[in-house]
Amino acid sequence: MHFTLNHTEIEALLREDVPFFDLTSSLLDLSAVNAEILFAPKEPVIVCGSEEAEKIFTLLGVNTELIVKSGRKAFADKTVLRANGSAELLHMGWKVSQNILEHYSGIATRTRAMAENAARGGSNIEICGTRKHLPGIKHLSLKALCSGGGSPHRLGLSDSVLIFSNHYDLIGGLETLCRRLPSIKAACPEKKVAVEVESVSDAIKAAEAGADIVQLDKLPNESVRKVSEALKHSRHKTIIAAAGGITDTNAETYAAAGADVLVSSWMYFGKPADFRVTIRKT
Amino acid sequence: MHFTLNHTEIEALLREDVPFFDLTSSLLDLSAVNAEILFAPKEPVIVCGSEEAEKIFTLLGVNTELIVKSGRKAFADKTVLRANGSAELLHMGWKVSQNILEHYSGIATRTRAMAENAARGGSNIEICGTRKHLPGIKHLSLKALCSGGGSPHRLGLSDSVLIFSNHYDLIGGLETLCRRLPSIKAACPEKKVAVEVESVSDAIKAAEAGADIVQLDKLPNESVRKVSEALKHSRHKTIIAAAGGITDTNAETYAAAGADVLVSSWMYFGKPADFRVTIRKT
Amino acid sequence: MHFTLNHTEIEALLREDVPFFDLTSSLLDLSAVNAEILFAPKEPVIVCGSEEAEKIFTLLGVNTELIVKSGRKAFADKTVLRANGSAELLHMGWKVSQNILEHYSGIATRTRAMAENAARGGSNIEICGTRKHLPGIKHLSLKALCSGGGSPHRLGLSDSVLIFSNHYDLIGGLETLCRRLPSIKAACPEKKVAVEVESVSDAIKAAEAGADIVQLDKLPNESVRKVSEALKHSRHKTIIAAAGGITDTNAETYAAAGADVLVSSWMYFGKPADFRVTIRKT
Amino acid sequence: MHFTLNHTEIEALLREDVPFFDLTSSLLDLSAVNAEILFAPKEPVIVCGSEEAEKIFTLLGVNTELIVKSGRKAFADKTVLRANGSAELLHMGWKVSQNILEHYSGIATRTRAMAENAARGGSNIEICGTRKHLPGIKHLSLKALCSGGGSPHRLGLSDSVLIFSNHYDLIGGLETLCRRLPSIKAACPEKKVAVEVESVSDAIKAAEAGADIVQLDKLPNESVRKVSEALKHSRHKTIIAAAGGITDTNAETYAAAGADVLVSSWMYFGKPADFRVTIRKT
Amino acid sequence: MHFTLNHTEIEALLREDVPFFDLTSSLLDLSAVNAEILFAPKEPVIVCGSEEAEKIFTLLGVNTELIVKSGRKAFADKTVLRANGSAELLHMGWKVSQNILEHYSGIATRTRAMAENAARGGSNIEICGTRKHLPGIKHLSLKALCSGGGSPHRLGLSDSVLIFSNHYDLIGGLETLCRRLPSIKAACPEKKVAVEVESVSDAIKAAEAGADIVQLDKLPNESVRKVSEALKHSRHKTIIAAAGGITDTNAETYAAAGADVLVSSWMYFGKPADFRVTIRKT
Amino acid sequence: MHFTLNHTEIEALLREDVPFFDLTSSLLDLSAVNAEILFAPKEPVIVCGSEEAEKIFTLLGVNTELIVKSGRKAFADKTVLRANGSAELLHMGWKVSQNILEHYSGIATRTRAMAENAARGGSNIEICGTRKHLPGIKHLSLKALCSGGGSPHRLGLSDSVLIFSNHYDLIGGLETLCRRLPSIKAACPEKKVAVEVESVSDAIKAAEAGADIVQLDKLPNESVRKVSEALKHSRHKTIIAAAGGITDTNAETYAAAGADVLVSSWMYFGKPADFRVTIRKT
Repeated sequence: MHFTLNHTEIEALLREDVPFFDLTSSLLDLSAVNAEILFAPKEPVIVCGSEEAEKIFTLLGVNTELIVKSGRKAFADKTVLRANGSAELLHMGWKVSQNILEHYSGIATRTRAMAENAARGGSNIEICGTRKHLPGIKHLSLKALCSGGGSPHRLGLSDSVLIFSNHYDLIGGLETLCRRLPSIKAACPEKKVAVEVESVSDAIKAAEAGADIVQLDKLPNESVRKVSEALKHSRHKTIIAAAGGITDTNAETYAAAGADVLVSSWMYFGKPADFRVTIRKT
Repeated sequence: MHFTLNHTEIEALLREDVPFFDLTSSLLDLSAVNAEILFAPKEPVIVCGSEEAEKIFTLLGVNTELIVKSGRKAFADKTVLRANGSAELLHMGWKVSQNILEHYSGIATRTRAMAENAARGGSNIEICGTRKHLPGIKHLSLKALCSGGGSPHRLGLSDSVLIFSNHYDLIGGLETLCRRLPSIKAACPEKKVAVEVESVSDAIKAAEAGADIVQLDKLPNESVRKVSEALKHSRHKTIIAAAGGITDTNAETYAAAGADVLVSSWMYFGKPADFRVTIRKT
Repeated sequence: MHFTLNHTEIEALLREDVPFFDLTSSLLDLSAVNAEILFAPKEPVIVCGSEEAEKIFTLLGVNTELIVKSGRKAFADKTVLRANGSAELLHMGWKVSQNILEHYSGIATRTRAMAENAARGGSNIEICGTRKHLPGIKHLSLKALCSGGGSPHRLGLSDSVLIFSNHYDLIGGLETLCRRLPSIKAACPEKKVAVEVESVSDAIKAAEAGADIVQLDKLPNESVRKVSEALKHSRHKTIIAAAGGITDTNAETYAAAGADVLVSSWMYFGKPADFRVTIRKT
Repeated sequence: MHFTLNHTEIEALLREDVPFFDLTSSLLDLSAVNAEILFAPKEPVIVCGSEEAEKIFTLLGVNTELIVKSGRKAFADKTVLRANGSAELLHMGWKVSQNILEHYSGIATRTRAMAENAARGGSNIEICGTRKHLPGIKHLSLKALCSGGGSPHRLGLSDSVLIFSNHYDLIGGLETLCRRLPSIKAACPEKKVAVEVESVSDAIKAAEAGADIVQLDKLPNESVRKVSEALKHSRHKTIIAAAGGITDTNAETYAAAGADVLVSSWMYFGKPADFRVTIRKT
Repeated sequence: MHFTLNHTEIEALLREDVPFFDLTSSLLDLSAVNAEILFAPKEPVIVCGSEEAEKIFTLLGVNTELIVKSGRKAFADKTVLRANGSAELLHMGWKVSQNILEHYSGIATRTRAMAENAARGGSNIEICGTRKHLPGIKHLSLKALCSGGGSPHRLGLSDSVLIFSNHYDLIGGLETLCRRLPSIKAACPEKKVAVEVESVSDAIKAAEAGADIVQLDKLPNESVRKVSEALKHSRHKTIIAAAGGITDTNAETYAAAGADVLVSSWMYFGKPADFRVTIRKT
Repeated sequence: MHFTLNHTEIEALLREDVPFFDLTSSLLDLSAVNAEILFAPKEPVIVCGSEEAEKIFTLLGVNTELIVKSGRKAFADKTVLRANGSAELLHMGWKVSQNILEHYSGIATRTRAMAENAARGGSNIEICGTRKHLPGIKHLSLKALCSGGGSPHRLGLSDSVLIFSNHYDLIGGLETLCRRLPSIKAACPEKKVAVEVESVSDAIKAAEAGADIVQLDKLPNESVRKVSEALKHSRHKTIIAAAGGITDTNAETYAAAGADVLVSSWMYFGKPADFRVTIRKT
């Protein structure tokens, strides 16, 4: 899957950290020293961001070798990226590359863990990351999801239909929504319409009214199971999404309970993966 | 402290989440419904990002009232921001505003906790956030630090001198660096020169060689105390910075051990603060 | 539906036409003349772009009154937008505003014509504009579609699944695709999967294999009718989209033949609507 | 003539259509398939945009061969551009490249037709495109004009002097303008001053008052002939531009009537050229 | 003449100087102090940049009063702009506003001096600034010229025809150019064609070949007079531009010698105007 | 020291001067002529901007050879940069490259002169350029300083602490500031605190209060000497910066008087260096 920041965006990231020059390296005359830099995770990770790190060093003008692509697993101490050139240039690219690798490999690794746990509970389950990533870095946040084997739940507000209670409470509640669902569906025949509900009975109501997807918000896995069983023999093939509090530890249970999709923000917020960065003379 | 994203930047954040329109609100005809939106933390927080949320709703064209500014404490359930207008416009600004408030209030709240704990260990201690925030969102990351009573350790590579072992190992090690320190200092007379070290003896060497700041990397607090005592009667008034593994729980101990500055990335990575968002008809 | 260019984008459009100043108005000293400018269509139109024109004049600093919003019908000679201020400023905003109003009202008007014709053939039919608009102006092109009562078929490549023969020919043809469809659908449970086909029999194959949408490319309306009848009693509720050569004149026939969605580029390319622009002293 | 979008602009066009990834190609695992893509017109065209299409594929990282440059004629089925690489990357660049080639080759082809027809009416006649292209895409619109052998009439408001009745009506009408023309001309000695008029007599008045160019708006070709004959023996070598309703079919007549410049928007609005796009395994 | 930076551009200038916050004002708690800032020239100047300074303070959120517009004369100690609000905000806008006012008022003032001197030598003489301003700041450089009563010689390479010896030497020299001039002129009938020459005889050759403008490069004023006299009775009304080494002190002489246009870079490079900035409590 | 504009920024500079095409070169068919362009200073200079000029020609697609890097001395007539390719492309890059080389080499050359003069007065003296460069071109202005052996005094308002009288007058004057200095210093332990003063006695007061740097504004060199002597035996190692009216001619005297840092805007405003540009057929 081709999914990378473009040159303009990479230049902006580099400029953010190095607006003019690297004062320390300059005072130490490091432009006169040839060196290499190596990035390797301290623990096994699913890599994300190595293409971006490669572009950073390439834009700086040093020779760069991308060894492990985004989406691949790297074992502990396995070098993921290597660059060599003037030590000043290496220092300029060091931290921004490391930050990208650590943050996004962290997200990718957690997504993969969640996906693997979920797969033990049920095959064909999709792990979706919410829109709850930090504003301004959607591109790499979604890349990290995909690198870990997940998907973006929604790219934003323009591409999909997800009706929250914050929506239907404004038009008279779930009952009213259910009455209007057929015309809403007819107005967007190429989209699936998702309705978020907070109880088993509401899920069944929404499904019977024709919701393509019922998103169960913060329900225990037993409730998911009840919804799943209730809808199993329905003529509608309603997709069941479970959202709210889903993590790597309960993903298997929710999957086993019959969810088709697990929607989570959990993967965005753990600690970054830890990468060892070695800079040495060549 | 005036520290906010400008209109161009706010527009880019909004466009990231709403590239064209809000499909769901449009299908539900929410432009015809007047409503108000309220943001209130579920737990007490130090607010960060309310000015940005205000700009988002103002750019959308709705009436907005900023109630709690960045840097101020908000108690649980205290409304921090309120806006009212068409429910479609409120939905367009909802998530990006909530994400900003939750992420950056989270950082601000953790920074404040760390600062308060550190203050119990020693007055006048400075809490600094590293450059380890996510690339692309430096502005709000630094604003969150300041909102919590911390400071940016360095804005980037161009504004300060911090010599890591990754630097001095390339020029012959700490000894060589110490010999070169006087001329380095003379080359940047308006800057303080910081040297990162990994042992008590190296710290003392660097201080005696004239480092304005010795940054102790991943040393236990007892080592900080030793360095502090060793340097107390020196003619140099060396600033002692402790870095690596500093969190809210050990900040007091490190402060009590004599550190002047605590350098940490800890505050960047916890869970976002939790805000309750209410949207209701008016 | 809130759907407008933001200030940064409006400023760029104005700068494109007026990089520095209006040389002609300046040579004639028109800054000393107060005037008003009025925009009115010469024929009835569905308006699109009046919000953008309003922003242009507002950014130039003149008083502006938006009279007819995008999506509304304006009769011949009905003033849609009015601004008054220095004649120099009015001249600076004139052409770029007129161009926006004329081009996008043209698209909106044609889309509306197509939608009304289609509605005579069948209720609940959706008119979709393709991705064949000009690169660089997607935002207003999609706004014009929506203003005319249509929808964007796809926002781009990231938000939807549409499998062309250019795709499945690379993996072994339609048969192979049909075999793989269940696993493809499982991999994107929240999306509808559309398959483009070029014959009635292929349409039926794709539908039976589980395609949520079959897009019939350049088939005559009788073929659409055959597909529609064949699928009427299927357990799959396959959506039928007709694409290729659909215009306002045949929209009714295609709708009557049973298409649920008409996919067209036709509305993008006719002549702009014609607006009379009056500038007169006040 | 070197006239192309730069990398930043090309990246923005690609990002507009592919904000993150190509979902369809990704679901079909097309990154594992090697293929080539070929673009060839179905009818003879004057090519415009092949350099931009080349840059799109090059930025995507595939091997690209530009065969027919902008401004050259391509016969039906002649391959204009070819690229080969992963089928996923080819699909990412397909539509945006095709849209550019089709739209701008369409404009170039119509401009060339108009220029050739005009040349039958009079040698040395210049075909100018107005500012009536779509806002936001001036660069390629002007490139298409030049590729077809035309010229931009004006780049925008800052580079030239063209006095419409919308200007001189504000200062007292054509008589007043004629009195002021000498001082206007003296104020911009390096520019030609053009005056738009709507009758033969006004054209002669403006020419006698010293207008370097008289632009005849929506006058029949007989009127152009009258102006041309009236001015033939004048000491002023007034340039005669004909504007309003000029198309490929009447260009010859207007040229034969004595116009030096034909100013038109006609070439901007026809149907795009039709290109066959072939994607096949390699 | 309306000629200003837009909001996006102003925000970029402010961000360049204040990337995050004003550290000094923040340490001094100046946000708690209300103050006013006044800008007044120490010597009489032609003002340029007061609209931009006004926008800077307005964007910062303080009350601002623009007293003297660009293009107007301000006497010594006359307040040109005043703003009041929090002292922190005033400090944030201070230097960037002062720099704009000082640099561009400097250029405007020198341009005006040159224009007034030239006017003593001949009426209707145009003062043109070259393209030799600093890259990246063309907008305000040209505004300063216009504020001083001058004009931009050329906006850039796309809007005008100026043939240097660096051009015609590549095609066989001035003789060849003269032979080709008629067809060059026919190819751009709406532009004046300028030819730069370095001797009286070349000037006459170019004029006789039909150059609309002869630009005399680094010729003494006696040579300008000779060219002027030689061309006085020509049927061509050739415009004479003098370029190279023209300053305020020799502008009168060159004007008296018969030049119609003086082309200079001199105004760009003197010292900035000196403005007194007062910040005081309110 | 690696310090250059990135591709996006270079493209913007080129676009500023060549928004669409080079009209003159196009009319002369220079795309058919192969040529080379050479840039050589007419007088010895310290080069600045050759990397940017190299990028300009490289982006235009011509072969480019960078011969003298920024920061190096070039003797008169020494070629600094050479490019060869189509004469049209060379003309497109000519002026913007020349302007960059001339302006910034001028600043670099003056900075070097000042640094060399200062070095005769005292070793280890730092030459700093102020924030008084033109807004919008900070990057290359600072690069020019560094190329000449100077430094930026401050990057902007966010990176350093410099307390002007415009600051302390708002809080009660220098006395109040001195009382508050210890707590101000404690609040930014990693920064040096500079205080600008206008008399010898104030300098001594500020130094005794703990200012790390006293910046003497517009004081004669005898006053600098007095401050220097007064502070020589102080326990504080106060840095003495002299600012206001410092030029190449008095730099030596100020250095000899005991200043550690000379702060100046003088280098920004002289005439550009003069480069001979040769374009010749190849």
